[in-house]
Amino acid sequence: MTVGLTVIPQSLAYASIAHVPLQYGLYTSFLGCLIYIFIGSSKDVPFGPTAIVSLMTYRTICEYGPEYAVLLSFLTGATQFVMGILGLSFMIDFVSGPVASGFTSAVALIILTSQVKDLLGIPVTGTVFIETWSSIFRNIHYTRFWDAVLGTVCITSLLTLRIGSKIPLSAIDKNGVKRTKFHIWGSRFLWFISTSRNAILVVICGYMGYYFFEKGNVPFTLIGYVPGGLPQVQIPPFGYEKKEGNKTVYIGLYEMVSTMGSGIVVVPILGLLENIAICKAFAHGKTIDSTQEFLAIGVCNIANSFVQSFPASGSVSRSAVQHFSGSRTPLCGLYTGTIVILALIWFTPCFRFIPRATLASVLIAAVIFMVEVKVIKPMWRSKKKDLIPGLGTFIACLALPLEIGIFLGVGINLLFILHQAARPKITVEQLKTIKGIDYLMITPDRCLIFPSVDYVRNLVTKHSCKKKLPVVIDCSHIYCADYSAACIIEVLTTDFSSRNQLLIFYNLKPSVNAVFEGLSPKDFVVVYDKEILQEMLRSESLVI
Amino acid sequence: MTVGLTVIPQSLAYASIAHVPLQYGLYTSFLGCLIYIFIGSSKDVPFGPTAIVSLMTYRTICEYGPEYAVLLSFLTGATQFVMGILGLSFMIDFVSGPVASGFTSAVALIILTSQVKDLLGIPVTGTVFIETWSSIFRNIHYTRFWDAVLGTVCITSLLTLRIGSKIPLSAIDKNGVKRTKFHIWGSRFLWFISTSRNAILVVICGYMGYYFFEKGNVPFTLIGYVPGGLPQVQIPPFGYEKKEGNKTVYIGLYEMVSTMGSGIVVVPILGLLENIAICKAFAHGKTIDSTQEFLAIGVCNIANSFVQSFPASGSVSRSAVQHFSGSRTPLCGLYTGTIVILALIWFTPCFRFIPRATLASVLIAAVIFMVEVKVIKPMWRSKKKDLIPGLGTFIACLALPLEIGIFLGVGINLLFILHQAARPKITVEQLKTIKGIDYLMITPDRCLIFPSVDYVRNLVTKHSCKKKLPVVIDCSHIYCADYSAACIIEVLTTDFSSRNQLLIFYNLKPSVNAVFEGLSPKDFVVVYDKEILQEMLRSESLVI
Repeated sequence: MTVGLTVIPQSLAYASIAHVPLQYGLYTSFLGCLIYIFIGSSKDVPFGPTAIVSLMTYRTICEYGPEYAVLLSFLTGATQFVMGILGLSFMIDFVSGPVASGFTSAVALIILTSQVKDLLGIPVTGTVFIETWSSIFRNIHYTRFWDAVLGTVCITSLLTLRIGSKIPLSAIDKNGVKRTKFHIWGSRFLWFISTSRNAILVVICGYMGYYFFEKGNVPFTLIGYVPGGLPQVQIPPFGYEKKEGNKTVYIGLYEMVSTMGSGIVVVPILGLLENIAICKAFAHGKTIDSTQEFLAIGVCNIANSFVQSFPASGSVSRSAVQHFSGSRTPLCGLYTGTIVILALIWFTPCFRFIPRATLASVLIAAVIFMVEVKVIKPMWRSKKKDLIPGLGTFIACLALPLEIGIFLGVGINLLFILHQAARPKITVEQLKTIKGIDYLMITPDRCLIFPSVDYVRNLVTKHSCKKKLPVVIDCSHIYCADYSAACIIEVLTTDFSSRNQLLIFYNLKPSVNAVFEGLSPKDFVVVYDKEILQEMLRSESLVI
Repeated sequence: MTVGLTVIPQSLAYASIAHVPLQYGLYTSFLGCLIYIFIGSSKDVPFGPTAIVSLMTYRTICEYGPEYAVLLSFLTGATQFVMGILGLSFMIDFVSGPVASGFTSAVALIILTSQVKDLLGIPVTGTVFIETWSSIFRNIHYTRFWDAVLGTVCITSLLTLRIGSKIPLSAIDKNGVKRTKFHIWGSRFLWFISTSRNAILVVICGYMGYYFFEKGNVPFTLIGYVPGGLPQVQIPPFGYEKKEGNKTVYIGLYEMVSTMGSGIVVVPILGLLENIAICKAFAHGKTIDSTQEFLAIGVCNIANSFVQSFPASGSVSRSAVQHFSGSRTPLCGLYTGTIVILALIWFTPCFRFIPRATLASVLIAAVIFMVEVKVIKPMWRSKKKDLIPGLGTFIACLALPLEIGIFLGVGINLLFILHQAARPKITVEQLKTIKGIDYLMITPDRCLIFPSVDYVRNLVTKHSCKKKLPVVIDCSHIYCADYSAACIIEVLTTDFSSRNQLLIFYNLKPSVNAVFEGLSPKDFVVVYDKEILQEMLRSESLVI
């Protein structure tokens, strides 16, 4: 029920983020939510409109109208479903924690920025982050006094009430003392008030709006008429008729799809990213079935598109509400879905009196905690280099289109992996056998594959030419190799034998040996036993 | 000298591949070659027009004219120089052997295809591989008899003479017997004939062309007038005037550059790729300074663009000639450059009599050995999976534009690396301590980074939940970790302690430990000593 009370104001607000009529937010919040009960794998995923997906929907369909949003929901679901069937869930693994944090923080800031205009009641232009803020500062003198006051009061109360959601509810307090019934019920009541703070605030402000409306003088901007009733069940619009002046133009599927462009791939992936993040966060030592989630979210989005919804996913902010309300199975979606249906049938006429500033406050209070400043400190202490993709993604997402921003972030991160593959650490030591014979021990610390083989060859050649000693390459850590590595090994053995220098491969894994043997290199000496190695080095020095 | 005699017919032929007037081929072959003497690092690189770069030049400038080719040479040089300064020579490492083989083979086939029309004297349309061949078969009845005969004879003689280039030249034969002076000079003569076969063939066929021309009845197509003399030294055309009907239109730098598009990046990289491949092939156990080569080739191309050249690089086919002719230092470029200059001053009037079919034969005989069928067998024996990027690149380069083909090939190959990073091999064993206590030993075989952490966590969780035993993670092979890994380790330790299950990290590298400790996980137990490990497992089992 708390989730249901949260989702109603949030879904109106997210619909405004997606730039579709507000009732579409409610349409998005019930059918998928009910279907998820049967096919979802996580008890903590509240399916419905979310900040990231709503923003990306807007970026994809721009101002083209709700038909595009509904079609996008269908395409998003279809893409997610196909990705699930193809087993592409591993793709999510390539978005690292730092990149996801940077992206989420940027989304939060962008949404926050987009709400400031409603909060202050000023006209704002510009879509890029910096543009919007400069426009806000230019127009700040247009601020509507009562909108700003209402907005500030709303945000303050939401943030204050939020503290209450952390009240412990167990029957026994910290010191193990059993609490009184009065105490228990009191804290439960406070917790409930706090958790459904969005709904309570909206009801109070809505009543205020109604009161002033009846008096004929509303000091703040209201959201206006929201059509009531359940949406019609119909096939998603694979083409629609549009009025241009007096003419009616038919816009086909191909044209609609090409307008949406890369969004058809980006929206599904980001939706899944958010969803899997929730599953992971609340997994508590259980394994997650990502493929199942891909299929479930896909089906929910497809079903949703038949009731005029825009794309949706599991919402991070509501998942916390759901989890801490004590969800046990995905069945809690039943309550959420039912409450939304009831709201659509009975309460929509009241929604018109909700002030815009209140809705903006609901959003701001929800997204402000998505700005993940708190991860910087542990990241700094753990691995400073990981701040680069994190901050890179954050800045890129603010300065560039969001999908390019996250793409860049993932790209930077993958470069780290490639660089690692290209530049193994190689230890070179001059050792003595028991019998006092000097030799060079060269130990690469990871697998030998094409980007690194020339580097390794150059290093081995350099060190072995400098000191004319027998060379032992310790292959204990080489767990794999490819054809390029085999070529280089062949060249190395030939080089060494033409220099009359001994080269021994020590402790080579059989699978790697098979790769090297494929080129049948001459003078290729592999030793597994330490004693034989010592013996070989001794007899070699006798020959020299 | 043999290189000089090879470069003259080849440079005319490569100019026809690049679709610029033939004299440009000669212009490309002297200045850069002379400059390379001073700044080049490899004794075996003959700087001049090459198959790959000429073909890519054509693909970049299409039929826009030689001004574009000269500008492209300047831009190519500039890009290569900047890449050298930025230390981007490691980029070449990411093109693996199989991908390079696939690409080179595709280029050879494309050039071969483009020459068949000259060989048979038929008109051919179509730019894509399959299109061209279908056009050849459609128009095969137009075959000009004498062109085809001459072409066949030329190719046959070139391929036959090629065998002679493998004659041993040393004063002592295989059996250690000293050879007679007659024998030595005889084999040297044969070797010289064989190595300068291109020049000899062109001279003979040119004379035939001249003979028939004087008689007034030439049975085959000649290449036509080639303007003589050295090229004018002038600034590369950063804009030029073009006649369109009666009007003269000025085409600016921006327009020229945007016509060339991605070629400005692709041509330099592929040129360097070819060049570095030569350096590696003839390195013979010495290390290569790739950065030096980047800078040298860059400067040569820039200088070349002042004498109206198109982009060039080190040529693989001539590098073999140079190497086996016994080059000792880069100074042999002096002979090549001088011969080309002499040819430009004195011999150009004779070039008009060279038959097209002869030039086509020179090209075909040069590129036919670039089709690397012979690498398939060792690749199959060594690592079958490496055939995928190789054949993938080959097919993609034939079916798609070349630059997209090689880009795809590199992409496929990098996916292998990423997949490897994402899916480490994890060994799970149930072991007993000396005192008979069961425990689970889990050994990941490579580093823990973001694409693999969830996989590792799921695996560890699955196995440790199935068997309620103390778990030891052997970290000997984990040579690095990132923030995402640290997060997962924290979650794992928390999960285990909430299950009251012992989790020990064994033999963790200090650098990795520092990353994990950054998040200060609770109940994080690291053990380095085998005996302490056994002791801990014993006491743990007592507690249970």
